[in-house]
Amino acid sequence: MDYEEPLFFRVMRYAEAADRDVVDMVSGNPDWEPPAALRDGLREFADFDADEFQYGPSAGLTELRGEIAERRNVDPSQIVVTNGAGEANYLAMARALERDAGDGVLLTDPVYPYYPGKAQMLGGDVTLVPVAEGGEIDVEAMREAATEETALIVANTPNNPTGVVYSRETMEALVSLAEEVDALLVADEVYDHFDYTGEFESALTIDSENRIVTSAFSKSMAITGFRVGYAIFPESLVDAAKTRHMLVNVAGSNPAQYAVLQALRETEPEYYEETRSMLSDRIAAFTDALDEAGADYTRPEGAFYVLARFDGFPGTMANVERLIDEAGVAGMPGEAFGPARADWIRFALVTPRAQEAAKRLADYF
Amino acid sequence: MDYEEPLFFRVMRYAEAADRDVVDMVSGNPDWEPPAALRDGLREFADFDADEFQYGPSAGLTELRGEIAERRNVDPSQIVVTNGAGEANYLAMARALERDAGDGVLLTDPVYPYYPGKAQMLGGDVTLVPVAEGGEIDVEAMREAATEETALIVANTPNNPTGVVYSRETMEALVSLAEEVDALLVADEVYDHFDYTGEFESALTIDSENRIVTSAFSKSMAITGFRVGYAIFPESLVDAAKTRHMLVNVAGSNPAQYAVLQALRETEPEYYEETRSMLSDRIAAFTDALDEAGADYTRPEGAFYVLARFDGFPGTMANVERLIDEAGVAGMPGEAFGPARADWIRFALVTPRAQEAAKRLADYF
Repeated sequence: MDYEEPLFFRVMRYAEAADRDVVDMVSGNPDWEPPAALRDGLREFADFDADEFQYGPSAGLTELRGEIAERRNVDPSQIVVTNGAGEANYLAMARALERDAGDGVLLTDPVYPYYPGKAQMLGGDVTLVPVAEGGEIDVEAMREAATEETALIVANTPNNPTGVVYSRETMEALVSLAEEVDALLVADEVYDHFDYTGEFESALTIDSENRIVTSAFSKSMAITGFRVGYAIFPESLVDAAKTRHMLVNVAGSNPAQYAVLQALRETEPEYYEETRSMLSDRIAAFTDALDEAGADYTRPEGAFYVLARFDGFPGTMANVERLIDEAGVAGMPGEAFGPARADWIRFALVTPRAQEAAKRLADYF
Repeated sequence: MDYEEPLFFRVMRYAEAADRDVVDMVSGNPDWEPPAALRDGLREFADFDADEFQYGPSAGLTELRGEIAERRNVDPSQIVVTNGAGEANYLAMARALERDAGDGVLLTDPVYPYYPGKAQMLGGDVTLVPVAEGGEIDVEAMREAATEETALIVANTPNNPTGVVYSRETMEALVSLAEEVDALLVADEVYDHFDYTGEFESALTIDSENRIVTSAFSKSMAITGFRVGYAIFPESLVDAAKTRHMLVNVAGSNPAQYAVLQALRETEPEYYEETRSMLSDRIAAFTDALDEAGADYTRPEGAFYVLARFDGFPGTMANVERLIDEAGVAGMPGEAFGPARADWIRFALVTPRAQEAAKRLADYF
């Protein structure tokens, strides 16, 4: 299994070179407008004294950490503002693997491909544990795969690529498992604003010294290129994470952090509700068309991806290319996410043409 | 030896709490104005389509890499745009230590404290090699310290904290040494715009598969908080560095990268010349006052720091605190940079009050 990006680029290149109109459902880049206050924040920053252009605190702008702390009900000292969820997960996973608690890493299958990539880079020994039929984590299988060497378990909820929102019970069971084998559970909640069940609960509500929560503003504010995220650590783990953050990146970028701060302060809940509702409509239209196409899929409870399987049409790179050429729809081959969903194709609903793409798929199959 | 930042914060806190006016010469944060085009770039970016707010290429915005490639006379594919020189050095040092060529790391003494911090985090075994009397690298001592286990040599030129610009011969000798023991030489040239000798030459002009050059716009554009830097690798080393960059940070922050791109395109040489001339004047005034104070120092050939030693007044933390309280000048204790200059104090000339500080020191001693 390769990291997502190279395969992602391969598919993008193929779609761009295609001799026809193609609906791009490959990347996870939001296609909607960021909060207005975010743009205002950047403009304001551009006029600041040059003082504000210099190093801020390594762990993040103090006011930004304050806003995050208030919303997440944690102490600001527990927060490291990072270069997106990417660095947040890197710091969290590094923390787990440098504790002399083993090098075993339990990940789900299917999996967001950056996780095994990061784990291997950090010296981790990765085991992929297939999820249950509908995409929920198979806690019993996780427990069977865990050993004394297990140092890290990563759970992404709402999940990319399955769209499942893990239940409170599942997350509690994973935290307990982490405690039992002296591992850390990392809950990557970057899609927390895209919960259509109304039942998503952050793992922050589970009190444990073995639980780290990561997130970012990349998806919720439609700014994947700003690189502002954060990790929330138990007090006992945060100092070493801050040191690593300082030694790798020194600090995050001030203009992006300030823009996010202003957007956090000024953006009304309606902004997030409207995005959620728009995506919910897209999901309904897309899955209706998948029904027409006779595809297998699990209706997403969160995030904005749909994994679908078409009878006799496994989600190989070759078939993804066929779909680009013959149906004009570009998705991601399931094999990018591990063997368990190699027959499937992931469609990212981050295009206003999601419905049109669905119709093309229905017509094609 | 501790990393610079914690000690730096300790000194800053002490200076802020002091019951008198203190000239802050602790941090390396430029106090001058960034290029006007940089502010314009941020404003322009704020009005861009939301598309431009999403993930750019992992290795950096294509146009920015193009501008850097042209200026540095390298192929764009050799460049990774990083989260400041901090990440550039991290990637370069990681590359050296993951080649199965040993874990020995040769650094100068005095040393920029992040280097040993990063090296240790990456599993390196650090040897500090004292520089010669005037601050030039002692190539013979480096050669004696090198073994088959040596994987990495780091040279910062123009140098922080000594102010020395290493000669072309020194850099060639270090590259040869790296080739002989199958190590990588990392030349950190973040102060390349602050050369007062007119003789500084980038290590890029030394052709070798064992040489990496790092730099950033943090100092040259007075934007340490924007976090835009880069590393230039030989073709044979760049792919693994790009993978690590992607797995740690995914990409750099777009608004900061775009602002730097505009500043690169639009800023006239006069901007850099004026800054250099202003700093050169500050150095002259400050070192004149050091002469009056009877201090030992080496007149900086580059960068913007002066290391000074006062007779019977070693640069301990206690004496740095005394200087804050009794003279109203805050510097960095020499021990922060390793044992070789533990008796010295580093003054950063990044305040318009550098001359006033010098007078205070002259009066005090």
